[in-house]
Amino acid sequence: MEYNDSETARDLAERARAFMDEVVLPTERAQPGGEPVGEETIADLREQARERDLYAPQIAEEYGGMGMDFRDVLPLFEQAGRSILGAPAMRVDAPDEGNMHTFELVGTDEQNEEYLKPLVAGDISSGFSMTEPMDGGGSDPKMLRTTAEKDGDEWVINGHKWWTTQGSAADVLLVMARTNEDAHPYEGCSFFLVSPDVDGVEIVRDIPHVGASVVGESHAEIKYDNVRVPEANLLGELDQGFQHAQQRLGPARLTHCMRFSGMATRALDVAKAYLSEREGFGSPLADKQALRYEIAEAETRLHAVRATVRDAADKIAAGEEARIEVAMSKVFAANATQDAIDTALQCCGGNGIGKDLPIGDFYEAVRAFRIVDGADEVHKRVIARDAFEDVDEAELEALTRYDG
Amino acid sequence: MEYNDSETARDLAERARAFMDEVVLPTERAQPGGEPVGEETIADLREQARERDLYAPQIAEEYGGMGMDFRDVLPLFEQAGRSILGAPAMRVDAPDEGNMHTFELVGTDEQNEEYLKPLVAGDISSGFSMTEPMDGGGSDPKMLRTTAEKDGDEWVINGHKWWTTQGSAADVLLVMARTNEDAHPYEGCSFFLVSPDVDGVEIVRDIPHVGASVVGESHAEIKYDNVRVPEANLLGELDQGFQHAQQRLGPARLTHCMRFSGMATRALDVAKAYLSEREGFGSPLADKQALRYEIAEAETRLHAVRATVRDAADKIAAGEEARIEVAMSKVFAANATQDAIDTALQCCGGNGIGKDLPIGDFYEAVRAFRIVDGADEVHKRVIARDAFEDVDEAELEALTRYDG
Amino acid sequence: MEYNDSETARDLAERARAFMDEVVLPTERAQPGGEPVGEETIADLREQARERDLYAPQIAEEYGGMGMDFRDVLPLFEQAGRSILGAPAMRVDAPDEGNMHTFELVGTDEQNEEYLKPLVAGDISSGFSMTEPMDGGGSDPKMLRTTAEKDGDEWVINGHKWWTTQGSAADVLLVMARTNEDAHPYEGCSFFLVSPDVDGVEIVRDIPHVGASVVGESHAEIKYDNVRVPEANLLGELDQGFQHAQQRLGPARLTHCMRFSGMATRALDVAKAYLSEREGFGSPLADKQALRYEIAEAETRLHAVRATVRDAADKIAAGEEARIEVAMSKVFAANATQDAIDTALQCCGGNGIGKDLPIGDFYEAVRAFRIVDGADEVHKRVIARDAFEDVDEAELEALTRYDG
Amino acid sequence: MEYNDSETARDLAERARAFMDEVVLPTERAQPGGEPVGEETIADLREQARERDLYAPQIAEEYGGMGMDFRDVLPLFEQAGRSILGAPAMRVDAPDEGNMHTFELVGTDEQNEEYLKPLVAGDISSGFSMTEPMDGGGSDPKMLRTTAEKDGDEWVINGHKWWTTQGSAADVLLVMARTNEDAHPYEGCSFFLVSPDVDGVEIVRDIPHVGASVVGESHAEIKYDNVRVPEANLLGELDQGFQHAQQRLGPARLTHCMRFSGMATRALDVAKAYLSEREGFGSPLADKQALRYEIAEAETRLHAVRATVRDAADKIAAGEEARIEVAMSKVFAANATQDAIDTALQCCGGNGIGKDLPIGDFYEAVRAFRIVDGADEVHKRVIARDAFEDVDEAELEALTRYDG
Repeated sequence: MEYNDSETARDLAERARAFMDEVVLPTERAQPGGEPVGEETIADLREQARERDLYAPQIAEEYGGMGMDFRDVLPLFEQAGRSILGAPAMRVDAPDEGNMHTFELVGTDEQNEEYLKPLVAGDISSGFSMTEPMDGGGSDPKMLRTTAEKDGDEWVINGHKWWTTQGSAADVLLVMARTNEDAHPYEGCSFFLVSPDVDGVEIVRDIPHVGASVVGESHAEIKYDNVRVPEANLLGELDQGFQHAQQRLGPARLTHCMRFSGMATRALDVAKAYLSEREGFGSPLADKQALRYEIAEAETRLHAVRATVRDAADKIAAGEEARIEVAMSKVFAANATQDAIDTALQCCGGNGIGKDLPIGDFYEAVRAFRIVDGADEVHKRVIARDAFEDVDEAELEALTRYDG
Repeated sequence: MEYNDSETARDLAERARAFMDEVVLPTERAQPGGEPVGEETIADLREQARERDLYAPQIAEEYGGMGMDFRDVLPLFEQAGRSILGAPAMRVDAPDEGNMHTFELVGTDEQNEEYLKPLVAGDISSGFSMTEPMDGGGSDPKMLRTTAEKDGDEWVINGHKWWTTQGSAADVLLVMARTNEDAHPYEGCSFFLVSPDVDGVEIVRDIPHVGASVVGESHAEIKYDNVRVPEANLLGELDQGFQHAQQRLGPARLTHCMRFSGMATRALDVAKAYLSEREGFGSPLADKQALRYEIAEAETRLHAVRATVRDAADKIAAGEEARIEVAMSKVFAANATQDAIDTALQCCGGNGIGKDLPIGDFYEAVRAFRIVDGADEVHKRVIARDAFEDVDEAELEALTRYDG
Repeated sequence: MEYNDSETARDLAERARAFMDEVVLPTERAQPGGEPVGEETIADLREQARERDLYAPQIAEEYGGMGMDFRDVLPLFEQAGRSILGAPAMRVDAPDEGNMHTFELVGTDEQNEEYLKPLVAGDISSGFSMTEPMDGGGSDPKMLRTTAEKDGDEWVINGHKWWTTQGSAADVLLVMARTNEDAHPYEGCSFFLVSPDVDGVEIVRDIPHVGASVVGESHAEIKYDNVRVPEANLLGELDQGFQHAQQRLGPARLTHCMRFSGMATRALDVAKAYLSEREGFGSPLADKQALRYEIAEAETRLHAVRATVRDAADKIAAGEEARIEVAMSKVFAANATQDAIDTALQCCGGNGIGKDLPIGDFYEAVRAFRIVDGADEVHKRVIARDAFEDVDEAELEALTRYDG
Repeated sequence: MEYNDSETARDLAERARAFMDEVVLPTERAQPGGEPVGEETIADLREQARERDLYAPQIAEEYGGMGMDFRDVLPLFEQAGRSILGAPAMRVDAPDEGNMHTFELVGTDEQNEEYLKPLVAGDISSGFSMTEPMDGGGSDPKMLRTTAEKDGDEWVINGHKWWTTQGSAADVLLVMARTNEDAHPYEGCSFFLVSPDVDGVEIVRDIPHVGASVVGESHAEIKYDNVRVPEANLLGELDQGFQHAQQRLGPARLTHCMRFSGMATRALDVAKAYLSEREGFGSPLADKQALRYEIAEAETRLHAVRATVRDAADKIAAGEEARIEVAMSKVFAANATQDAIDTALQCCGGNGIGKDLPIGDFYEAVRAFRIVDGADEVHKRVIARDAFEDVDEAELEALTRYDG
């Protein structure tokens, strides 16, 4: 099932599939279940991705990537998602991927020289510091209370952040702060680049959470107490932080859909192998119709994920408005992938719970997807508002029959 | 949301939408709820469709249609589905549409002259006589027990058919019968053209059923007792009946998906109008989040239906194998449309049950869709078989860790 | 599975089961599918119910019933539900059952002599006239616009009713009207007894609807235009109409749960027989695990319906508050029975849609259950309000950790 | 909602609730999220449980428990489940609870003196060593390959076990081994008591898995290589191992249902507090209808869990067969509790994923419940077999109408 991808996209995805099958999955399988994966393993995988011309495909060549079009890279993300090691290997791993994308979009030459190039090279890592304690889903911009005030030629940042992805390991933090109290909530916020070594930055802890997984995905609680950064550390335009976040998020939502689709696909691959190898009550489990049908349903929903994500990406690539299509793809993908992984886990019984197979990690990892990048509820809200926007006048008219 | 339809397809669908909004829906609304629609009403709608160049778009011009490509007509079907009167109006109504398609595919010049042209014109109607009493879903070809035996230059047909769509009103019946007992079940069957007036044809009754609806959709029980037809009444090739049925069914499954998608879309349109107009417990029902979210979910699934159906149609149009894509589209669409219509009905409360609104008819009509054109179970069986076809060797190998 | 029913209840239910198996179901099966059942058939079944001491068990002996306790009659309702003819046969059929219950609760001796006794005897029938055109679900009392004004020693009723169950066949109508405009919406309404022959009563039509079924379940649109009734036709206390409706509804919701549980149970019985008898793709359908598991899930949910309904009934019988338990039972039962019947229909393929089997009728009949007796949304609203009533203080306190 | 529990049961559960609210939950909240809980904390909680007369209620007084009836203790389990610390605190924690129950059922006086008493006291702990690598769900007895052969007055055990709960911390292991190769798979197995210090016992590792949680729930991989134990270490009757496992499992399945019901109830309590405290888009989240309704649905299903579990327990307490009722309760409870916890997690957004709240741990812990104690598929298999056991003859007969 190849959808309407271009030749370029198909070729890239095929090579990514081979890389996953030949390099990444064997590496993953050789890791002891549940153990963190070492940095040298990731470095080695990246080296091999570079050799195969599969490294940072989405980044401009001048910064060290392959300079490919978003729409053409999209199918590669599904391949990357087949192992938790896939995205780091091909340098399409969150949050660096999104941060690199932001630099490309709005970074100055100096910023890109200092941060983007070494990020692409994998020499440094970055944290995304936006969510705050009172805003569980990061959904409502009115919740943002961290401030940055101008003092001379410096900005002074004060606030308390939660869920700063990769915050405790980052060489640079992208911090969202309110820079204009009087503006509409969606306006008046800005991004700043903050080094964790600057005075006043306190990495309180890594927040314990579901889905820390083998690559040590971490989210830090960070306090910013009179943190001073120079003017040049403003990233993007003043007061346009939410706009920049949106620019970053639109395509990112689709790439995440593909990444989790790959994860769910892999979970089903493992489950199908498991059912084929195992017997129960006198016949191979793969012959038991009920689980077969659940897998058929899961495969069907993942097919729909792939088709809707591509439809949204086509519109974005064509420069069309695709807000509703993205929202629909995201909420549908998040639920379809969680369901598929849950089904796969159930197929493997006790070994589905165990972490010798990758499904246990996937089960923990996928749960965040219905919450981040806009929670289910936020997307349904957007979709519903659109659905009720133009209520059909003739249908309304027809209802007058009930007016009695 | 316009998907990757061609300009031609979009134009046709847009004109169909206007025809539905301006002519068909007002006609539907003017009908007393629950009452059968008269033949003259249908004839009048067809006249207007002809005037608007929307009549029988899928049929070759030489037979009276518009000679358009299957892929380009596809989106029109969704428009047609928005009212139970839409498909008859544009002459894309089952079973005649499928029967006409079969004539086009395999009919002789004489047969097409005698039957296809008047069918397209709407001067005669046809019945599709395949399912038998013991085969509830029409799914298993081994069930077919009706026989046709050669006697001189005639075929003698004996059997008992169930669910012969439009059988009691038909001018000609397309009857599937076994012509070769020794062949594999999928082979050895053939189609015959049988006039209901011939000796031995007994229209036992119209089988009472859920979803008879306002256009009097009927399915007859018919007995064929030594019915004799001349050799020339063989339709298509000898022993190739199932192959012809499949040729007909592939694209037909997709057009039905679109037709029911249109029905579900209309149901949601009515529901949204209803919720907007009505109040309960102090505020418009449209402000109640729970129903809004259910509608958002229904819209999302219908969007996925439209995207997957087009994906399958693209493959068919490109001459590629699309069996799995069609199966997935069909089973997904059947469930998504049933759910959406059920949600819409619930939104309208008691008036959803009532037949002043069209939703009650839709609720009854849609239920067959998970059974006809291959029941859910049949499609899941096909999808599962495909899913288990190439179990990943490396995943199997990785399981040896459990061998103890 | 016998639950904690009393000996009396079990004996009654067992005898009802025998009556259904030996008399009612054979009668049902002998009816041509989809055809209305004649009055003489019902009269004959009632005669046999009387002979077996199974007639109107819930009504006091002085009015012609068996004088049994609500809790003891409860399991009989499930038996009655196994055929659409069961409830009429044992005279536990809506709306007469609820109307008779209302007479027992609040009727005067004269009213009970004039109406209740002949109702119990089956000599007359009654209509329940409460819902209005603007109130789809009959849920919000503020919607009630019909008024009754005192004029001398008569009440003058004006209004427009919708869904007056059995309205076009009734000898007496129970009409709810507002008698006090200044009162709180839940107060200030009263019930009146109105003969359909009185001047000003216009039976506009039977509203066409899903689920009319073989016993011709009908709901009339009725206009009351200056309808005058004597003071003695006030049923129950002045301004207490909603209270009387609630008194009637509490236990009635549970009996309806049991009736629909019986319907769903029967649907599964038919489906299991069908699957056992039919073959597909080389083996009995009953051996196909997927449908077996769906039936197992349906049976499990119906078991939960039976357990929760009894739990609520125990509390009502003990004089305890059971509003939440009733709401939970109702919403759970309505969804579980709709799902079970849908599953049963799917098991029977085309013949599930057909009306030779009873499932098609059940499918149409059950759909109203999620709307009447309080729509799903109304019950969930009640349950949620209760759930949020006493939010745990300690849990709230624990959340201060996020205050930053 | 108090169901039909006895006074004794209600009193016990009420006191357990107070203990949880006043002691266990504050202790849990004081733990750093995601960190393992120390042994001294558990010891302290047990001390307080003893003081409140809530310690080991299910164990006979002679062994150090409270000697209460299974049915009366049942509701306490729900209270215990409200925190992961609850079951250890009241000494109703798996696997010791089940192991203690087995000792009580079949242990000799010597065995009970040596193992049961110190187990009840909390001085030692025990492991349950039954599942094997090839048997993911522990469901099919034919899978058991570990053997015990008699050699003189010793048994020699050889095998490879998987998922030996608490195996790496146990002072004694209950090992199931095949003692009779010729017997029916369900017969011919026996339990043995094995000290982990004996020659030939190799604790390979703790299997990494989803849901290790704060009390360090562990499952070991263990190899038994010519492990010799004296005859006296046979636990229960020879060749009756599976029967003993069943005796243990019947009531245990119900207590686990209650424990997980408590966990789910707590998750909803936390979610309700969270929604009440937090705002989003201008109003408290608790006012958003969609999440309210999902909570209402979750509460309704948990109510059904409580009612069905009690129904099954009543039958067991009355000495009746309750296999189907237990299977239905188990499969329904496992799915209802997983769903409720998933809903609760979603309500709390990012903080639902985080482990400062207990929901994240619950999410991981509950996933095993659909697999252990008989996987969903095993219970559905049992329920379906029972459902198809007595297919109604009259319904079968009625189907002959389709024989044509």
